[in-house]
Amino acid sequence: MKYLLFDAANTLIYKPNLWERILKVLQDNGYKINETELKLRHKLLSEIINFPDTTSRGFYEEFNSELLMALGIIPDENLLKELFEACSYLPWQAFDDCEEIKKLDIKKAVVSNFNSSLQEKLEGLIGENIFDEYIVSEKENLRKPSLEFYARALEKLNAEAGEIIYIGDSLKLDVIPAKKLGIKALLIDRDNIYPSAKDRITNFSEIKNYL
Amino acid sequence: MKYLLFDAANTLIYKPNLWERILKVLQDNGYKINETELKLRHKLLSEIINFPDTTSRGFYEEFNSELLMALGIIPDENLLKELFEACSYLPWQAFDDCEEIKKLDIKKAVVSNFNSSLQEKLEGLIGENIFDEYIVSEKENLRKPSLEFYARALEKLNAEAGEIIYIGDSLKLDVIPAKKLGIKALLIDRDNIYPSAKDRITNFSEIKNYL
Repeated sequence: MKYLLFDAANTLIYKPNLWERILKVLQDNGYKINETELKLRHKLLSEIINFPDTTSRGFYEEFNSELLMALGIIPDENLLKELFEACSYLPWQAFDDCEEIKKLDIKKAVVSNFNSSLQEKLEGLIGENIFDEYIVSEKENLRKPSLEFYARALEKLNAEAGEIIYIGDSLKLDVIPAKKLGIKALLIDRDNIYPSAKDRITNFSEIKNYL
Repeated sequence: MKYLLFDAANTLIYKPNLWERILKVLQDNGYKINETELKLRHKLLSEIINFPDTTSRGFYEEFNSELLMALGIIPDENLLKELFEACSYLPWQAFDDCEEIKKLDIKKAVVSNFNSSLQEKLEGLIGENIFDEYIVSEKENLRKPSLEFYARALEKLNAEAGEIIYIGDSLKLDVIPAKKLGIKALLIDRDNIYPSAKDRITNFSEIKNYL
């Protein structure tokens, strides 16, 4: 293998405060929800409603409406406002197991639906000389799950599909399109939401088994 | 209260073989899925992707693609074909607790997104003199969650919102629009998918507590 290629959001980086913030708003409004259930329903919803490169208040209100209903809660204007204020603009953080990536002696790159700030963000959170290329939707004017976006990535990396292992958290956006181009793709599933998935890892320490 | 008003699909009637059929196809293809997880993900998906009055093969293939991905399975043509063949045109059956409805000395009616066969179907499965009115989307040219559809129901029942208790299995299609018109609405949640929901029952025997 020549390259490890990574998705960014919820693969390399996440918003650690998100769950406690949502749970706090719900609890303040009389709803006691289990964190595991919240994560599961949030994830399933995120797989159906794709996040745009730049999220707006309108997008979050629509998404949070669906999330509340998925939890059995009737959304009202006030609850949506509280959720938006509690959860928007939360800081990103790198997953702890990003340290495992650094141990792997192979070139690395990122292909992500994200805004143009991604490179700076990842360099700050993970390190400056970890990734050789950053291929970002907002810059390329292409988005996952488009096969053209993955083809563009291969071009920029000057690599063949068979020389790459790609790792992402979404079957729909990451694994399925990458596989269509012949790229070996692994699903990172740290929260055990997809125990039946094939080619699944739950921690970056498992990547070495596929090299 | 003057009327009990019911949703039909997955409130009064269901397809009891559906789960075993899906699980069998998945097992034959090497996927061992837990029935509780299947029901949960199927339900959450059904709340986002609305079922049309008349379901086509194309609709089911799109729905089943999303369902497979929600279970961590990559959909392929063959799997979708097997699922369609195993699961389409399964017979409806009344939930056992429909017997509880018959004990309640109050007028009853149905308002449902369904094709025009609904009245005949429910009379065959539940009984001939149980429901006074059948208000069906395909006939009215109106669909849930449209408030107009609920307003039409009130008109046909010659009743005020305050005289009605409405029972359905969907927050989005049933409870939320009915409440907007001032109808008292109960969520029927036999599979305990929404333990945090308010005005929730898990069996029709609980309706009497609200009369």
